[in-house]
Amino acid sequence: RANNRNEATVDTGHPITMREKTLTMATLNPQVKAVEYAVRGPIVIKAGDIERGLQEGVKQPFTEVIKANIGDAHAMGQQPITFVRQVVALCCFPELMDSPAFPDDAKQRAQRILQDCGGHSLGSYSASQGVECVRRDIADYIAQRDQGVPADWNNIYLTTGASDGIMSILKLLVSGQGRSRTGVMIPIPQYPLYSAAISELEAVHINYYLDEANCWALDIEELQRAYMTAKHHCQPRVLCIINPGNPTGQVQSKKCIEEVLHFAYEENLFVMADEVYQDNVYSPDSQFHSFKKVLYEMGPEYFSNVELASFHSTSKGYTGECGFRGGYMEVLNMDPQVKAQLVKLLSVRLCPPVSGQAAMDVIVNPPQRHEPSYAQFTKEKRAVLDALAHKARLTEEILNSVPGMTCNPVQGAMYAFPQIFIPPRAIQEAQSLSMAPDMLYCLKLLEETGICVVPGSGFGQREGTYHFRMTILPNPEKLKVLLEKLKEFHLRFLEEYSQQEPQTNRNAQDQHSEMSKKPD
Amino acid sequence: RANNRNEATVDTGHPITMREKTLTMATLNPQVKAVEYAVRGPIVIKAGDIERGLQEGVKQPFTEVIKANIGDAHAMGQQPITFVRQVVALCCFPELMDSPAFPDDAKQRAQRILQDCGGHSLGSYSASQGVECVRRDIADYIAQRDQGVPADWNNIYLTTGASDGIMSILKLLVSGQGRSRTGVMIPIPQYPLYSAAISELEAVHINYYLDEANCWALDIEELQRAYMTAKHHCQPRVLCIINPGNPTGQVQSKKCIEEVLHFAYEENLFVMADEVYQDNVYSPDSQFHSFKKVLYEMGPEYFSNVELASFHSTSKGYTGECGFRGGYMEVLNMDPQVKAQLVKLLSVRLCPPVSGQAAMDVIVNPPQRHEPSYAQFTKEKRAVLDALAHKARLTEEILNSVPGMTCNPVQGAMYAFPQIFIPPRAIQEAQSLSMAPDMLYCLKLLEETGICVVPGSGFGQREGTYHFRMTILPNPEKLKVLLEKLKEFHLRFLEEYSQQEPQTNRNAQDQHSEMSKKPD
Repeated sequence: RANNRNEATVDTGHPITMREKTLTMATLNPQVKAVEYAVRGPIVIKAGDIERGLQEGVKQPFTEVIKANIGDAHAMGQQPITFVRQVVALCCFPELMDSPAFPDDAKQRAQRILQDCGGHSLGSYSASQGVECVRRDIADYIAQRDQGVPADWNNIYLTTGASDGIMSILKLLVSGQGRSRTGVMIPIPQYPLYSAAISELEAVHINYYLDEANCWALDIEELQRAYMTAKHHCQPRVLCIINPGNPTGQVQSKKCIEEVLHFAYEENLFVMADEVYQDNVYSPDSQFHSFKKVLYEMGPEYFSNVELASFHSTSKGYTGECGFRGGYMEVLNMDPQVKAQLVKLLSVRLCPPVSGQAAMDVIVNPPQRHEPSYAQFTKEKRAVLDALAHKARLTEEILNSVPGMTCNPVQGAMYAFPQIFIPPRAIQEAQSLSMAPDMLYCLKLLEETGICVVPGSGFGQREGTYHFRMTILPNPEKLKVLLEKLKEFHLRFLEEYSQQEPQTNRNAQDQHSEMSKKPD
Repeated sequence: RANNRNEATVDTGHPITMREKTLTMATLNPQVKAVEYAVRGPIVIKAGDIERGLQEGVKQPFTEVIKANIGDAHAMGQQPITFVRQVVALCCFPELMDSPAFPDDAKQRAQRILQDCGGHSLGSYSASQGVECVRRDIADYIAQRDQGVPADWNNIYLTTGASDGIMSILKLLVSGQGRSRTGVMIPIPQYPLYSAAISELEAVHINYYLDEANCWALDIEELQRAYMTAKHHCQPRVLCIINPGNPTGQVQSKKCIEEVLHFAYEENLFVMADEVYQDNVYSPDSQFHSFKKVLYEMGPEYFSNVELASFHSTSKGYTGECGFRGGYMEVLNMDPQVKAQLVKLLSVRLCPPVSGQAAMDVIVNPPQRHEPSYAQFTKEKRAVLDALAHKARLTEEILNSVPGMTCNPVQGAMYAFPQIFIPPRAIQEAQSLSMAPDMLYCLKLLEETGICVVPGSGFGQREGTYHFRMTILPNPEKLKVLLEKLKEFHLRFLEEYSQQEPQTNRNAQDQHSEMSKKPD
């Protein structure tokens, strides 16, 4: 198209007044300012800068940035499950229904989903709660997963990834002012979506600490302590659990879940169970128990009363379909009038992405034994999960071989969260830079090796302890290299900061102020 | 899988205590309670109930429910644009790159998008702002659309539909308490996402009325009146404009946009320009002018200062891909620190659906004249837009032929918003039912004809006037039937409520209380 702009209207001859902006850091919504999200925080932004530099020829002591900061399986080379993609492609472009290249079971799944879409098109809005047959399939999946515990598709809501569902439920629950303001109990360490959402909604953070000495188990006495302390300054109304744990990788025992649910029942807490890693259990001694199933087994008094929302996602498991932003939540015992309010709230955003709903459908309704895609599907699924189990063991073993580093077993999920010893001198240097000590550690790790992990301070940790979160997603060869480089870096770091004199001259006057504060 | 549940654990012998819930209407977040969204409100829920009834054999005076409540093109039978679906299907299932059934230009588009995805997979998270090449394509599109006005891809953010972008920007802008609380200027009538977002964020609604007598033009004096009035009780900081208008269908003139931007400049308002209907202009006398282009033409003093966000979407235009939840925003003159805060806020939700980003890419980067898909693409695009233009005229003509109904020209967008005369007796009946008079009208229309439209009260309207919004999306045959049925209904309604005695006995004692209130 021709540029028919009249340049004369642009009066470049006059100096332009730059006026004060309407939207500045001073006028920005303080709730937005309060939000923190380390998984894509400063370290990751820095990693992106370094990566661009590498592409432009900047010399670094490494040739690539390895992003072990986020559970993004495909970005680390994991292949999509063929059947999932076949069904979504068929839904996208139904002319492929005639193609002999696609198996019949994939075509049937796609046809079934399109049947329930407006105008039989993925391009229509779905109902705010999601496509009906997808909700029905999810309910069937849950009933089967939980060995027969009934599931009602009317309690299922499709979401834009699990994050969206968690945000929607939290939004309902926040009310009151001052001492009656809603308090939300979250594990520490936690996935920072929770703290971000609580900040954004101006709810009260209630931290309960997972027991690192006991494989990050959830200790009921600690839950009680946190609750009783919080009661003085807020109204604890919500209890969040992440199982399998993120960033901590533990799989909670059935007994522990029973205790948590009993506690929630006694204290009238709304339970939010983040179960997005339900398919990611690697330890032969661990088993996934859904909060819903355990609640059912505790008897109808519990099953009919405890308000529970459970979240799942297409992004994790063996599919790793993060980009589709698919997910669902099952909501139990919600007041019917509140449910209507939830639907109203969801309807403002119209619907979750329908392609993500289609992907979710395949995950809960995979090929059955008699269907043509069963063998390939099963093989692909097995391969992903076996590789993850192998990498979980590998990571734990190598990390535990590093002096000054201890790592709990990665029983499930996709992360290791080792504790690292940081020498007092490094702590002091970090503090002089107004930086968390593990941030300094991760920054140096990135700068020296190209490895990008997230500091433990972004997830929360007991004071005086330091950690980082890394994913176990790189392929075994790359993971081994990564772990060896990490080991070398750590030893170098320990040596550097154990010398008598500081390496840098920054803020030398403060150098002894924090020496007494030792990590435990 | 066998049902191996131990039924004995379910102690059905004891009566279950139903305890008071944690989450009730009394404890629900009051900001959620305050949200209203008529486009999927009570009328639409009722329409769904009637539809299910019909399927189950319930007798009605009609055989189908026609949902003219929402701009959901595919649900009304509009066909997807082949090229869009080919590219997205190729991105989903790259094995199709080898298929001769797909044209080369579609394959090149898909390859280009995948090249910029982590692991070359649509299943990876993208950067929080979106896939880089998609952002670059959008910037190129904008520069071309605006006849050479420069566009920087760093100012482009992909979104989960336009709604998500609008919500994110509003979230940044809300601050202060009492008289310093952010006020948001919105047109009346408006698309109710705006009022819903303002309620949810507890900002202050500032209504400026569009001029119905002048084709729903935006009158600058009315803008000033609304601003001056609001200044007494809040801090007006944001000005929202919808152009082409929803629900009102007008296309603003360049002169009007200049005045609005001048006003925003003078009063230091952040401008939010909802331009999702930029491709939907039907009237030969109307032309779409982007706020950005007009701002540029006003000179660098304006172009370098006015803070402006413009929103676009995959859901409207000629593609109607609502289900993909694709969209973008371009943000001008935002403070760099605030931009970093915006990125942080977006990163908590990780990324918009990547399939929606792919669809957005095709829309801004369609086949070029020399490419194999050009002819089919152009034909399909033309067919959709011509049909919409025809239906816009048809709707306006028939509605204006109904006594007691007047409809402005549908210059653009996808809706007619006729004013309807509601007889005083009907108003009185509605009020005795605590119902807006146009809600009563739309409810009766639905019950008697199966036609689902949204009452004007859901969008806002001058007091004493009544409207409804209907889409022009049904195919011409169905649309004609719909309009004829609507006409018959309206005449029946007028007759019914013009009789001397009320048809119902409800609240007969109030029957004269509102007789003096006449619509104008």
